[in-house]
Amino acid sequence: MGNKLEQFKAERQRLNDLVLSTENTHIKRFFTLDNAVYSKGAIPVKYKEMLGLAASMVLRCDDCIAYHVDRCFEEKVSKEEMDELMSIALVVGGSITIPHVRRAYDLWDELAKDQAKKSV
Amino acid sequence: MGNKLEQFKAERQRLNDLVLSTENTHIKRFFTLDNAVYSKGAIPVKYKEMLGLAASMVLRCDDCIAYHVDRCFEEKVSKEEMDELMSIALVVGGSITIPHVRRAYDLWDELAKDQAKKSV
Amino acid sequence: MGNKLEQFKAERQRLNDLVLSTENTHIKRFFTLDNAVYSKGAIPVKYKEMLGLAASMVLRCDDCIAYHVDRCFEEKVSKEEMDELMSIALVVGGSITIPHVRRAYDLWDELAKDQAKKSV
Amino acid sequence: MGNKLEQFKAERQRLNDLVLSTENTHIKRFFTLDNAVYSKGAIPVKYKEMLGLAASMVLRCDDCIAYHVDRCFEEKVSKEEMDELMSIALVVGGSITIPHVRRAYDLWDELAKDQAKKSV
Amino acid sequence: MGNKLEQFKAERQRLNDLVLSTENTHIKRFFTLDNAVYSKGAIPVKYKEMLGLAASMVLRCDDCIAYHVDRCFEEKVSKEEMDELMSIALVVGGSITIPHVRRAYDLWDELAKDQAKKSV
Amino acid sequence: MGNKLEQFKAERQRLNDLVLSTENTHIKRFFTLDNAVYSKGAIPVKYKEMLGLAASMVLRCDDCIAYHVDRCFEEKVSKEEMDELMSIALVVGGSITIPHVRRAYDLWDELAKDQAKKSV
Repeated sequence: MGNKLEQFKAERQRLNDLVLSTENTHIKRFFTLDNAVYSKGAIPVKYKEMLGLAASMVLRCDDCIAYHVDRCFEEKVSKEEMDELMSIALVVGGSITIPHVRRAYDLWDELAKDQAKKSV
Repeated sequence: MGNKLEQFKAERQRLNDLVLSTENTHIKRFFTLDNAVYSKGAIPVKYKEMLGLAASMVLRCDDCIAYHVDRCFEEKVSKEEMDELMSIALVVGGSITIPHVRRAYDLWDELAKDQAKKSV
Repeated sequence: MGNKLEQFKAERQRLNDLVLSTENTHIKRFFTLDNAVYSKGAIPVKYKEMLGLAASMVLRCDDCIAYHVDRCFEEKVSKEEMDELMSIALVVGGSITIPHVRRAYDLWDELAKDQAKKSV
Repeated sequence: MGNKLEQFKAERQRLNDLVLSTENTHIKRFFTLDNAVYSKGAIPVKYKEMLGLAASMVLRCDDCIAYHVDRCFEEKVSKEEMDELMSIALVVGGSITIPHVRRAYDLWDELAKDQAKKSV
Repeated sequence: MGNKLEQFKAERQRLNDLVLSTENTHIKRFFTLDNAVYSKGAIPVKYKEMLGLAASMVLRCDDCIAYHVDRCFEEKVSKEEMDELMSIALVVGGSITIPHVRRAYDLWDELAKDQAKKSV
Repeated sequence: MGNKLEQFKAERQRLNDLVLSTENTHIKRFFTLDNAVYSKGAIPVKYKEMLGLAASMVLRCDDCIAYHVDRCFEEKVSKEEMDELMSIALVVGGSITIPHVRRAYDLWDELAKDQAKKSV
């Protein structure tokens, strides 16, 4: 996987460890719940990740977007589905989401190129 | 269908007609695009409506929520799927979405009761 | 002027009086500053009100929108200018601004009809 | 207590019951966590409610504001403290919070008058 | 023009090309519409750019701000007008816009210095 | 104090000086007011800074968060209080605040380590 994403993941892990070293149980429970809502259920995991990505796009949270773009790619969301999701986010959230649309496509492109290299 | 939803739809139509009576083509094109992104494609219409609902929930737009809850119900989203979507919106958007979660459930309940009556 | 707008203005005045009955000087200073920034300067008052309306639209604050739509109308903003301002707000802020676009047009229509009646 | 607040509380309870009648455990856990973070701890309950109110003000959530204004009043927040909290919210969140500042003061005034009546 | 702005523009172009290499017509149409609303009309282009900047300021989108600050400068917005626009954005959006006000002034300063150099 | 924070403070000062070199009195008055609301009053300064931090967290403004985390540390907010404040912000604002929670803890950790070094 690309360098930018690897760095993002490592820093994310380092900081999650720091946050979760707290004795505060409410913070820990929130993090547990945050994982739990994307797990297998009536809605397939792939679509749950797409819901998470759409929500992150319109709220314009770059770290959340990077996380869910990566997860969507892992869950085999197609480029066409990604395009349609982005078009919905763009129309709902407006042109202020465009910088985030750009960065989402940049990461997707990196993931696709990396996969293409591996599969050679 | 329930009275509150019927009134909402009638008022929405009256105001859409007023907005679209403008000569401004950009506004009209935006409204056209807003319909188009939810139409049939790589993502099934049902899931597109769910993406629209998730985005509306975290952006806390009651009219948008009412519209998409109604559309999700029409597209046969199950109560379990609705619950899971709401749990994602709640976790992503936080407790400030709770008043909107409440109103979404109120409308869903109205739609479900109305359907139950009709099917007797 | 229409009844809805008159009621809005009266309630707004009643509550402003209540807020400003405080001894807290910071709150009073903020309200003073809030008026001052829209006063005559390098940017004509009309365009300042349009800036205030555009900001209120994308932040989706109905009371702020009502106030600035009324002020824009007083400052002789034309329907064409109003349309163009709305098209910018709609594109920047996305479809979640649509309910507010609707209500802005509703108020504008009320103001225009009221003016037409008076000028007969 | 005043009628508006009583109605708000009754409707809030009715809808909370509806939401929590779900089988979805994540939603229930979120509601539990939402109560838990305001409970007794290193920060006194009074200040926790003030933190909740400040957050609700800048996020402009009227139902959340009503809930926390009522709780702050119960926790004996003084009018001077309420004023200072509002001045911080106003400066952080800007003039778009003013409609919410107005409604917060309206509710506070109702609570104060009701208390005065009772204590006669 | 300054280096930071040139880099921002080049990266923006690279990513826009990537996004627009999609086959999704809705995304392309949105980008077209996003350009169209700022074009010549009843509102002079200069004021349209100022509306775009005010909206971007209160929504706190740095890339959008950089784009519109640059466009405002091109459209001969004066420093006094820029100051007044910023004062409105600051009052409407509150102190959370201050980091963006800072960066807007930084870019404006860079543009002004660059122009001064060229005109020597 | 750590390098990142020192750099942040220096850049913040440079840009504040640039903004405040304006002749626009409204901008200057806003900055004055922004300082004034956190000064000594009915609410202790420590809790005012905590209110500012909670508001900055849910509005997801990294520069505002860095400023108030630093101020909270100076005002002797304990780690337990910081944890409880973060748990409230997290629950009110949802998982989209997590990247900001991470960065707040990172800065807190830096401040704590720096203090530990000094006190040896």
